[in-house]
Amino acid sequence: MSSASSYAVIAKEVMEELKTLYMNTILPVEEATSYSSFGFSPLNAGEFDSPPLVLLVGPYSAGKTTFIEHLLGKKFPGQRVGPEPTTDKFCAVLHGEDERVIPGNALTVTPGTPFKGLQMFGNNFLTRFEGAQSNVDILKNLTLIDSPGVLSGEKQTLGRSYSYDDVLNWFAERSDMIILLFDVQKLDISDEMGSAIKVLQKYSDKIKVVLNKADTISHQQLMKVYGALLWSLGKVIDTPEVTRVYIGSFWSEPLKNEDTAPLLEMEMADLLRDLAALPRMGAVRKINDIVKRIRQIRTHAVLLDHLRNAMPSMFGKEKKKAELLSDLPTVFRTVMKQHNISVGDFPELNKFKRDVEMIDFTELPKIKGGRMLKGKRMQDIEEALNSKIPAMLNRIPGITGSD
Amino acid sequence: MSSASSYAVIAKEVMEELKTLYMNTILPVEEATSYSSFGFSPLNAGEFDSPPLVLLVGPYSAGKTTFIEHLLGKKFPGQRVGPEPTTDKFCAVLHGEDERVIPGNALTVTPGTPFKGLQMFGNNFLTRFEGAQSNVDILKNLTLIDSPGVLSGEKQTLGRSYSYDDVLNWFAERSDMIILLFDVQKLDISDEMGSAIKVLQKYSDKIKVVLNKADTISHQQLMKVYGALLWSLGKVIDTPEVTRVYIGSFWSEPLKNEDTAPLLEMEMADLLRDLAALPRMGAVRKINDIVKRIRQIRTHAVLLDHLRNAMPSMFGKEKKKAELLSDLPTVFRTVMKQHNISVGDFPELNKFKRDVEMIDFTELPKIKGGRMLKGKRMQDIEEALNSKIPAMLNRIPGITGSD
Ligand SMILES: Nc1ncnc2c1ncn2[C@@H]1O[C@H](COP(=O)(O)OP(=O)(O)OP(=O)(O)O)[C@@H](O)[C@H]1O
Ligand SMILES: Nc1ncnc2c1ncn2[C@@H]1O[C@H](COP(=O)(O)OP(=O)(O)OP(=O)(O)O)[C@@H](O)[C@H]1O
Ligand SMILES: [Mg+2]
Ligand SMILES: [Mg+2]
Repeated sequence: MSSASSYAVIAKEVMEELKTLYMNTILPVEEATSYSSFGFSPLNAGEFDSPPLVLLVGPYSAGKTTFIEHLLGKKFPGQRVGPEPTTDKFCAVLHGEDERVIPGNALTVTPGTPFKGLQMFGNNFLTRFEGAQSNVDILKNLTLIDSPGVLSGEKQTLGRSYSYDDVLNWFAERSDMIILLFDVQKLDISDEMGSAIKVLQKYSDKIKVVLNKADTISHQQLMKVYGALLWSLGKVIDTPEVTRVYIGSFWSEPLKNEDTAPLLEMEMADLLRDLAALPRMGAVRKINDIVKRIRQIRTHAVLLDHLRNAMPSMFGKEKKKAELLSDLPTVFRTVMKQHNISVGDFPELNKFKRDVEMIDFTELPKIKGGRMLKGKRMQDIEEALNSKIPAMLNRIPGITGSD
Repeated sequence: MSSASSYAVIAKEVMEELKTLYMNTILPVEEATSYSSFGFSPLNAGEFDSPPLVLLVGPYSAGKTTFIEHLLGKKFPGQRVGPEPTTDKFCAVLHGEDERVIPGNALTVTPGTPFKGLQMFGNNFLTRFEGAQSNVDILKNLTLIDSPGVLSGEKQTLGRSYSYDDVLNWFAERSDMIILLFDVQKLDISDEMGSAIKVLQKYSDKIKVVLNKADTISHQQLMKVYGALLWSLGKVIDTPEVTRVYIGSFWSEPLKNEDTAPLLEMEMADLLRDLAALPRMGAVRKINDIVKRIRQIRTHAVLLDHLRNAMPSMFGKEKKKAELLSDLPTVFRTVMKQHNISVGDFPELNKFKRDVEMIDFTELPKIKGGRMLKGKRMQDIEEALNSKIPAMLNRIPGITGSD
């Protein structure tokens, strides 16, 4: 655990460097090439500053809130626990010196948080969203998202004036781990739960399923419930890889069933180990995302440069633009060859065409032009890809090694 | 176990009665009404005399042969056990005073066995089929079918000159229990195994899956393998009901892993209990099959009687026959109302039409005619349905009671 937390410190430093690199080197190119009008809004500082997100999802009363309380070792502000549906908001549990609740609208504009994008779900959702600040060390390295339990039938839709599945998708996409909790006592997967799992299955590599309260039944019953869960999940989730299911009882009470206690202890230790590794793995994931983004923005800049240079200096501008637009596949192919760029870094052709059509081609930035600092911007991007980012990755322990 | 075996004795007596009833009361009606030319070959004595069938299926080396040896408490003739593919025939293990092997061709004509129908697979198969007689009490109540292990890739088809899946289907249809064995050490389900499971899934209510050799791995590994098995089975088998998987190690060695031993012992006891209940449940299943057959033959007789009575005594026979054939739905509806027969007991209309077309309608038997003993045959059938068979069912313990 001490090495896990020193990993976390390094991971934080690296995220700080990555943010500086993005703000100073990448963002200016995004601005010069109007990247946001091609559908890529700029990243904000909060997305680098905030620790990895862990999303808790599950039927009501599966023990999501209790799980978080157990991780923190104490209750958190605004939290309620109980056998009936209790949590009625999405709640981001994050680090803060004083214990307090932050309303959803305020949370989306709080510096250092990644929640700005939630504004798109409007006030109906934002009044059902809040932050809970708590002064617990683990929250320096992880932000936990508690969610309202999935209800079945009309209860789910009637009580909620926003799309649960859409919000779930927003959080799932940005999470580093999704913990899907089930209660051994009531396993039946409702239609609504099935639909939530369908949303999550896109992120199946991040899902950890927990079969919770596992010590309340006998060993043989546990096997049956566990088997039934995997049977049903196998039918819903489309991958051949088996989703890992952790058996446990995540709360502060001692385990009740000694036949299964040794198994449960090992399983819970495994999950906690995975959680402890998240800050490190989260940093690697973030770096990968940024590398992908840089490669795409490089391609984007080179494409615009090519179109700009193809334009005549005096007459026939409209005609040339039409010509280029009608033969974009050739443009893509030429650029790919000249700059040795791989297909995967190119934008989707039709989407690019729709976006670039709106622009006067003579106003596109040249790579050697003033807006791109006479080529310096692109050199910086190459340097980031070829040496700065690899150096960051090297600093994160266990990435190149045998771990 | 003593009550289980007294159940078995009663079940045998009831089967004997059922056979007598069928031979004396039902078969004569089948003959009088040419039921076999409508696609229903008469049942033979072997199908009543033979105890319930238990079919063992699984990848090679899963421990099928060892499982049978373990049930018998000793080796059986012709058997081989080993880590490589060993069993290369379907083998019916049945009761006999002397221990010996009976070749496939001979076995299909041995009185008291239900294997006559296997002749349709021809000699290629029959040389790959044999009986093993053994003098063990459990075989008085159960016949066990050992099968060659499912191999993957070319090995499966190259080595076999008959269709494994078709033969599998023949046995599965007639079995009272299908035990599908997997080895925890090599779980990956090959395409061939998947195709075998597809064949078996029609009989999913009879399938018991065994995860064998379960004591050779740790408790946590066992959970993973068990989960992976249910995950895969859930994808292949189309029912929402979870197939029961028994964890165990079915051989005579003591269990090696004490973490899992109590669980395995309970699981194995469960499966052995299910096996002990089979003779009783098998008798009930047989009675149900026969009831279904009697209801259908009654409808068949009434239909033919109706057609016969609709025929003119002198002229216009061909015309009337054509008329009746072209308006069979009305015939069915009239008969249904007059005799208060439920839809489910009627033959498939088009098939019935094709079969009855071949026959001279004036030669069809009348219920009150001589061939049907002036109505006595049908009275006997009613009596069988209304009192004789219910009395048989009542004799089987635990059917009407709380068991
Ligand atoms: N490991 C556990 N073993 C037994 N009971 C538990 C366990 N964890 C939680 N519980 C109990 O289950 C009930 C529900 O817990 P909790 O409120 O944490 O669930 P939840 O998933 O957050 O529900 P909701 O979706 O309604 O917010 C509570 O009564 C709690 O005490
Ligand atoms: N419960 C068990 N635990 C450990 N090993 C076992 C167990 N049962 C069988 N074995 C071993 O597994 C091997 C295969 O056993 P066996 O021949 O019974 O399998 P099989 O399913 O009949 O194979 P085949 O399909 O080739 O006939 C043998 O070496 C046997 O000793
Ligand atoms: Mg809650
Ligand atoms: Mg064998």
